[in-house]
Amino acid sequence: MTGVRVAGVGLTPFGRHEGREGRDLFAEAALSALADAGVESGDVEHLNYGNFMGALAERQGHQAPLMVEAAGLRCPGTRYEEACASAGVAVREAVRAIRSGEADMLLAGGMERMTNLSTAEVTESLAVAADELFEVRAGVTFPGAYALMARAYFDRYGGDREDLAHVASKNHSNALNNEYAQYQREVTVEEVLDAPTVASPLGLFDACPITDGASALVLVSDEYAAEHDLDAPVSVAGTGQGGDRAALQDRADMALTPAATDAADEAYADAGITADDVEVAEVHDCFTIAEVAALESLGFYEPGEGIGAARRGETTRDGDLPVNLSGGLKAKGHPVGATGGSQLAEMTRILRGDHPNSDAVPDATVGLTHNAGGTVASAVVHVLEVAE
Amino acid sequence: MTGVRVAGVGLTPFGRHEGREGRDLFAEAALSALADAGVESGDVEHLNYGNFMGALAERQGHQAPLMVEAAGLRCPGTRYEEACASAGVAVREAVRAIRSGEADMLLAGGMERMTNLSTAEVTESLAVAADELFEVRAGVTFPGAYALMARAYFDRYGGDREDLAHVASKNHSNALNNEYAQYQREVTVEEVLDAPTVASPLGLFDACPITDGASALVLVSDEYAAEHDLDAPVSVAGTGQGGDRAALQDRADMALTPAATDAADEAYADAGITADDVEVAEVHDCFTIAEVAALESLGFYEPGEGIGAARRGETTRDGDLPVNLSGGLKAKGHPVGATGGSQLAEMTRILRGDHPNSDAVPDATVGLTHNAGGTVASAVVHVLEVAE
Repeated sequence: MTGVRVAGVGLTPFGRHEGREGRDLFAEAALSALADAGVESGDVEHLNYGNFMGALAERQGHQAPLMVEAAGLRCPGTRYEEACASAGVAVREAVRAIRSGEADMLLAGGMERMTNLSTAEVTESLAVAADELFEVRAGVTFPGAYALMARAYFDRYGGDREDLAHVASKNHSNALNNEYAQYQREVTVEEVLDAPTVASPLGLFDACPITDGASALVLVSDEYAAEHDLDAPVSVAGTGQGGDRAALQDRADMALTPAATDAADEAYADAGITADDVEVAEVHDCFTIAEVAALESLGFYEPGEGIGAARRGETTRDGDLPVNLSGGLKAKGHPVGATGGSQLAEMTRILRGDHPNSDAVPDATVGLTHNAGGTVASAVVHVLEVAE
Repeated sequence: MTGVRVAGVGLTPFGRHEGREGRDLFAEAALSALADAGVESGDVEHLNYGNFMGALAERQGHQAPLMVEAAGLRCPGTRYEEACASAGVAVREAVRAIRSGEADMLLAGGMERMTNLSTAEVTESLAVAADELFEVRAGVTFPGAYALMARAYFDRYGGDREDLAHVASKNHSNALNNEYAQYQREVTVEEVLDAPTVASPLGLFDACPITDGASALVLVSDEYAAEHDLDAPVSVAGTGQGGDRAALQDRADMALTPAATDAADEAYADAGITADDVEVAEVHDCFTIAEVAALESLGFYEPGEGIGAARRGETTRDGDLPVNLSGGLKAKGHPVGATGGSQLAEMTRILRGDHPNSDAVPDATVGLTHNAGGTVASAVVHVLEVAE
């Protein structure tokens, strides 16, 4: 089985792209990834594309052929939809296609356009990722769902809003010098605590923003990289996917996200590592409590121990395990269908040494990305390694 | 590389399922497929699920986890969206996952709920599969788009509405005794010609209906089938996918569907056959002209020769190449996200000998399915064979 290299990555700035169509955003990321890889677009054999809410935001489904055209490709494409984990799944299937020998080069990534909708529209459109019958009709939207998870966590394990505020403040600090981040500014713990409540115990700065953006990766086989003498030091060493019940009420414990554990266990086994080997991670912090749950589900902390990680400085840029050096969904932004690809693109830059925050982990060779859908009813984990 | 068997198939009746949720429909198909296969649902390692317009029809995206639960599975799931070819892509990727050794058993299929929408809503929702910027804003919906293709065909190759009427009449005849078909009644050539015009030259009976329904297949490796002594005589011998520009205006020739040719060429090579070896086919006849274009694109007829095939009796149940013995999308119905899986389920039944129309091809060992998205901007072709 061949290994898989990340030959190139491309991102749009995350934020508000007023007046730009989704295909325009994805073209920017795709062309940037192809240029970064230094490959011919004619060698791309398939586009694996993630998008969540295009039918609602742009009245545009069936986006794969459009994005193939926008990226200047001549190949088929496939759209993957797994809520906020759409691009994570798209990348995962691209990795597996190369490993199986079906293709030597794929383009994978995703796009979401969101800021063209009103706040009410975007909240309702995001709620489509929850269980319409048993959650949404009862009034649950995602801020409320994650607030329930935070309350369940506090009840079971302790912790408080200030612990969560440290997660937000940390990720904003990390985004400060990331040119792709939506918010390149500090947010203090006090500001987080003083912000208006969105869904108690979560306030405005516990939530990620609404974001337009796109991500793309050029993935190639080891053989292709060698034959074409590509400068592609980062490999995808492990991939895993997990699933859970969609509705929170069907979970055994609302404070836990076992789909992420399943995905991580599969990815660790695939890469031949354990959680202890991970030196830097990008996790799905759509809300601050989501980062805490991720740290525990991925095996970095025991249940109940992750809540204090940021406050203790263990996941800050100078901690033992820097988490979300990109700024995370929280500060970099969360164009939902693009996020999974963005995490891999950022981690690739971090490990290659050309990320503004690479200096936080100059010797790191093993990084993890964790992309989740809904209230972690879906999870995709990847392990990236600097190839020897 | 292992071969892939169809261990079991399941379908809901196609038609109007008033008051039934999408998850309920998919559960019916999935449980039926598992029962047909005689396997334990606990052995299913992944759900590959196709759905097109759930975010619009049921305000429900992120359907894979819901369908995993509805089917009683304990595994992750992935949603594929490729407009009306969604389930075709879902099956294709399931086949490739088994071949690559990643899994021994997957459930693949799809679901669409459509009749709960008004006619205007469903037309607008289907139009999401076209190019919003360059087609839909100019007034194009799918009846109009296929009417343009029919006009282009008539202009270039000749043919007339009566030729198309024979396609509709043939497929209605085939649906007569298919218990899953939405319309189990004859439609004469005269009735088709006398029907109200929808988009000239296409009339009401040139178009497939609006349909609720679901489809599912249990796919297993040859090894699994042998170890568990499954009665699974039909194998997926070939798979292919093709893509084209989304907008008709970007095509070199609106009368042709080269994405289907690309998909067929790949599937034929994969199966080690040619078009001449195919003995029976299910093709994507969302409109009568679409069946004609498919016959030519798949290599059964030269361009310009397919238009008369039904009229000459060559694709009728007693012809040399019976096409759409299920009734096709035209008469069996077209729940768009389920259709690709339905075609494979029907072909499996035909080749196994337990389809009401199996007697039309009692000795057939090679069948083809052709599933298309949009105006064939996406196409998926499968070759099914009775294993020796």
